[in-house]
Amino acid sequence: MSKELAIGIDIGGTLTKIGLVDLDGTLFGHLDFSTKGYPQVDDYLLELKRKIESLKEQLTFNYEIKGIGIGAPNANYFRGTIEHAANLEWKGVIPFVDKIKNHYQVPIYITNDANAAAIGELIYGDAKNMRDFIVITLGTGLGSGIYANGGLIYGFDSMAGELGHISIEKNGRKDGLGVSGGLEAYVSSTGLKRTIFELLANSVKESELRDYSYNSLHGEIITKAAQDGDEIACAAFEMTGKILGEQLANFVAFSHPEAIFLLGGLAKSGKWIFEPTLRHMEENLLPYYRGKVKLLPSGMMDKNAAILGAAALVWEQQKPGKL
Amino acid sequence: MSKELAIGIDIGGTLTKIGLVDLDGTLFGHLDFSTKGYPQVDDYLLELKRKIESLKEQLTFNYEIKGIGIGAPNANYFRGTIEHAANLEWKGVIPFVDKIKNHYQVPIYITNDANAAAIGELIYGDAKNMRDFIVITLGTGLGSGIYANGGLIYGFDSMAGELGHISIEKNGRKDGLGVSGGLEAYVSSTGLKRTIFELLANSVKESELRDYSYNSLHGEIITKAAQDGDEIACAAFEMTGKILGEQLANFVAFSHPEAIFLLGGLAKSGKWIFEPTLRHMEENLLPYYRGKVKLLPSGMMDKNAAILGAAALVWEQQKPGKL
Repeated sequence: MSKELAIGIDIGGTLTKIGLVDLDGTLFGHLDFSTKGYPQVDDYLLELKRKIESLKEQLTFNYEIKGIGIGAPNANYFRGTIEHAANLEWKGVIPFVDKIKNHYQVPIYITNDANAAAIGELIYGDAKNMRDFIVITLGTGLGSGIYANGGLIYGFDSMAGELGHISIEKNGRKDGLGVSGGLEAYVSSTGLKRTIFELLANSVKESELRDYSYNSLHGEIITKAAQDGDEIACAAFEMTGKILGEQLANFVAFSHPEAIFLLGGLAKSGKWIFEPTLRHMEENLLPYYRGKVKLLPSGMMDKNAAILGAAALVWEQQKPGKL
Repeated sequence: MSKELAIGIDIGGTLTKIGLVDLDGTLFGHLDFSTKGYPQVDDYLLELKRKIESLKEQLTFNYEIKGIGIGAPNANYFRGTIEHAANLEWKGVIPFVDKIKNHYQVPIYITNDANAAAIGELIYGDAKNMRDFIVITLGTGLGSGIYANGGLIYGFDSMAGELGHISIEKNGRKDGLGVSGGLEAYVSSTGLKRTIFELLANSVKESELRDYSYNSLHGEIITKAAQDGDEIACAAFEMTGKILGEQLANFVAFSHPEAIFLLGGLAKSGKWIFEPTLRHMEENLLPYYRGKVKLLPSGMMDKNAAILGAAALVWEQQKPGKL
């Protein structure tokens, strides 16, 4: 008998991560390589194939590849394309799935990284039996995958779930897409750092964070400062959690999830982000929802979430009963 | 051969509307009766049955009742209940579907009125071939039915789509549920009226609307004033459309609908509400969505939308291929 495996591929602006994963989430080999340095996508794909084959060669048992799942920025699930991704070298619309089909005759699925995270939560994480949940990824930006009615919400043209770019303040900070007051400009690892810098500018309070440049400051330093009782750090988490909690209350009124999962760098700050977020979410929920929507750390937090999320696409698409 | 019919029932705070409807949306008899005056729900149900039977008696052809669809405030689709509806006389949780099953042995479906409106749009209106759309009902309040991935989004406990109660301004007007800055306090027939009164208070500009009491003012008068060039009326439509357009842009980032339909009293104001709403929606959409999301008057606007929406539940639930 041969083991069924999915190939999970996460394409980031800097690194591409690949792994061979079974239905239980066990990784049978994985590796990273630089996404950069391949101005022609076909050259990148040849390298990708070489890397996949090198992983397969290391397997010491019989196996069957059931499919390839890909998480990538600006991926269009319906068309199998990567479209105008600002942080990749390939311009325009890349027919990514069609190109990989030249190399592999298995089912191939692609979606954006936040959607892959949601499917990862469903297959490998803590949303296993849920029909309605939201995953929020809090890294450089804010990504979201919305699962409702037992399916991922893709929308008319595969662009649903862009909650990082909801405008929360007409004249607010510009986010990564130039949206004024875009949510991710406040709620993300970068957003937290921007809030720290705003607070450092607005007062002359002492803070251990005054010794860091913008580029050297990161989440772990801010969490450590909060643990030390640094007022600026604590206030920044409170502000961030307030904005996130208020918006989560709105998201609940939209799709009424059973749970909302937080994943990514900012989520690793633990209680510092969860406590104020939950408090402000509850304060702003309609009475009907109060106390009934779980706010949880992603079950993928300590796993290789990006590869597993991509691989999970294969199992989700091929699960019994799927139309 | 007998004609297949659905019974559509819309339960409002004041009136209950009943009709017999075929799959094409033809009404074979309909009537209204007062919802009030039945402190015991069982008495109401007896009257409801009498009314249904009186409609059936008038039919002059062979027919088969395929099911009963009900639109009602605070209806829980999963449990078949009406729960704590503020504008009905029956307190607590009413097992409405179970009670009707004592009288009729056909499939019975219940959901809230805005969800029924969305299903009505799907079966009888202008969303016939759409898999992703939103219906916004603009009456006394703001209701919403969200259809995505080819299904209505009910959420974990049937309370998805409460977009009228999203808070758009922390210290803003209280809405019908006491939410500060709740969207429906600005965007609804009542919201428009409140805006008129705010504008009348904030300036001493002449306006034909200064001759109306709050209780006597309604949408048609405001639309007429706008047509006459009344500055207060025009400004109120602009403000209302601005707020709605901004929020629709956020809703698009959530579920990426192909179209958003407006229904109800305020939608009847036509260009006065559609023009500013579309303009502000487009201004606030992410570049990717611009020019691609249709803002349309509901195809149910001149039909008996409440009865048809309720009846449509039956056909939607029984369509071939439905799980």
